[in-house]
Amino acid sequence: MEEMKKDIGDLGEFGLISHLTKDLKIKHSTTIKGIGDDAAVLDYQGSELVITTDLLAEGVHFNLIYTPLRHLGYKSVVVNLSDVYAMNAIPKQITVSIAISKKHDIAMLEELYAGIKLACDRYGVDLVGGDTTSSFSGLIISITALGSVAKDKVVYRNGANETDLICVTGNLGAAYAGLQILERESTLFEKEGVQPILKDYEYVLERQLKPEARKDLIDYFEEKNLLPTSMIDISDGLSSEIMHICRQSGKGCELYEDKIPVDEQTSKVAEELGINPLTCALNGGEDYELLFTVPLSEYKNVNDHPFIHIIGHITPEKGKHSLILESGQEIELKAQGWNPILS
Amino acid sequence: MEEMKKDIGDLGEFGLISHLTKDLKIKHSTTIKGIGDDAAVLDYQGSELVITTDLLAEGVHFNLIYTPLRHLGYKSVVVNLSDVYAMNAIPKQITVSIAISKKHDIAMLEELYAGIKLACDRYGVDLVGGDTTSSFSGLIISITALGSVAKDKVVYRNGANETDLICVTGNLGAAYAGLQILERESTLFEKEGVQPILKDYEYVLERQLKPEARKDLIDYFEEKNLLPTSMIDISDGLSSEIMHICRQSGKGCELYEDKIPVDEQTSKVAEELGINPLTCALNGGEDYELLFTVPLSEYKNVNDHPFIHIIGHITPEKGKHSLILESGQEIELKAQGWNPILS
Repeated sequence: MEEMKKDIGDLGEFGLISHLTKDLKIKHSTTIKGIGDDAAVLDYQGSELVITTDLLAEGVHFNLIYTPLRHLGYKSVVVNLSDVYAMNAIPKQITVSIAISKKHDIAMLEELYAGIKLACDRYGVDLVGGDTTSSFSGLIISITALGSVAKDKVVYRNGANETDLICVTGNLGAAYAGLQILERESTLFEKEGVQPILKDYEYVLERQLKPEARKDLIDYFEEKNLLPTSMIDISDGLSSEIMHICRQSGKGCELYEDKIPVDEQTSKVAEELGINPLTCALNGGEDYELLFTVPLSEYKNVNDHPFIHIIGHITPEKGKHSLILESGQEIELKAQGWNPILS
Repeated sequence: MEEMKKDIGDLGEFGLISHLTKDLKIKHSTTIKGIGDDAAVLDYQGSELVITTDLLAEGVHFNLIYTPLRHLGYKSVVVNLSDVYAMNAIPKQITVSIAISKKHDIAMLEELYAGIKLACDRYGVDLVGGDTTSSFSGLIISITALGSVAKDKVVYRNGANETDLICVTGNLGAAYAGLQILERESTLFEKEGVQPILKDYEYVLERQLKPEARKDLIDYFEEKNLLPTSMIDISDGLSSEIMHICRQSGKGCELYEDKIPVDEQTSKVAEELGINPLTCALNGGEDYELLFTVPLSEYKNVNDHPFIHIIGHITPEKGKHSLILESGQEIELKAQGWNPILS
């Protein structure tokens, strides 16, 4: 099939970028100029700009053996948008820089961009720039996302107050459970040639391979005119994230084991793998759910909502992060979040 | 010395980022929130935002054998700022994402950040975010720069008009000449153990290793209330860049060989290496000078200035890019710009 590969060199960098981005349509009138000049030009008058960036490296953040490129493109965008939502902002534009090794051909890049485009369409963001270069190693994806938010609606990590309710969306630990299944099956395949059986794992696999960001929560806050006192997205695991909020707010917390939402499939997979489901939820990471605090007065708004779970409350003791087990026993939370720099 | 290396793993990602960025002070009141949350928050009310991004990969864009990390950090920032200036905008903030391999220790990252910090100070920009991760290969640096410009002052590539003067700042080809010297000396050292002799090459080496961006030109435009009709920064070589302007403006151009500014040291080095100095200027790349067009009515403003050179003019014939040699002969310009995707 080698001869059917299109030659990236023939297109050149500019040809390549315009080839990959030709189907992208500008969605925002505030995107004055997208790809095609030294820089993109955007109009953020009347609102604050938030900016966030993530770099994903092959072998560290993803394994191409079991990660479809289309999903990888989608996920690379989503993890950045999640950070924008975590500021209570609406993402508007992204830039995408990619370093590709010689082993990648245009068909592979097209798959990656198909996923990027899907995420842009799903979340209503414009791809406005980027850089494509070669690499002597694996695939590197660096995405920067911009979003807007009214000046008085920005939500930081440091505003949690005593007695505030600690809330989390969706459920936790599924992405980690999915990763364990993928790792197990790929090891079995490599070592023993056993074909992966992925049936019965669809939900946790999708959470790992093609996560979604919590746009719906930000829409709900807007609808209810609800302003959280603090917010963070769960990329490294619940423990690590709640400790960021507490540390930056100068407070402590109490979480309740029986309130932490874990999906049934996550629990089943965890048991199958001999892991405590709670460990997946506390330290798993890559959930991209939102963790936030609200004043007690907002109890009804958060309690009424089907995907918001109240999992604890903020306490005055800085540095004290407690988890109350179902048995009533109180243990200290430890952040053992997934940290690519250590891996 | 191995035991003296600080352990990156001990610091963790958050510790590492705060360690590396602890000396950075916020310069702009519009930087509402820098590092330390899910995203940075910036205030761009009253002006347009420009955004640009570049990804630099070890072995493709830089060679650590002869590139001091401090210079590399400085240059990584400057190449992005140059794109912002090329929109006639003032850079305000950057984000820096880095992937490091196991062979890098904290001392090396500190050197890299020292250069990044120096560029931030020199150009008055705030470092507001980023990502640090491990890589299974070499060093990867991905920088995104943001800048602001009044709505009616944005300069694109597509506004050049017939008879407009084509101007360029500084001189061209020096960075390319410097690169050739570095490559020659490193090959000699590797193959024959000959110590590099870099005396007499200081200027071209500095242009390659520690280039500057043309902030001064944007200041001059502001002072003279001069608005170019088109502008681009020279990263791939004069030929390639003027053809971008012509293509996007639907025009042609005539350049004059004897007007193209080449420094004496560049010429000397080129001759020593058996390269035509003109080739360095036309196709060398990495000059980070600005190429722009102005109406004839601005002749005095551009001609008076010591570092602005009028090198030709825009013609009506789209697709015709001519170079008039000193002999009077007319030849067709060819873009043979340095293209990392092909290398």
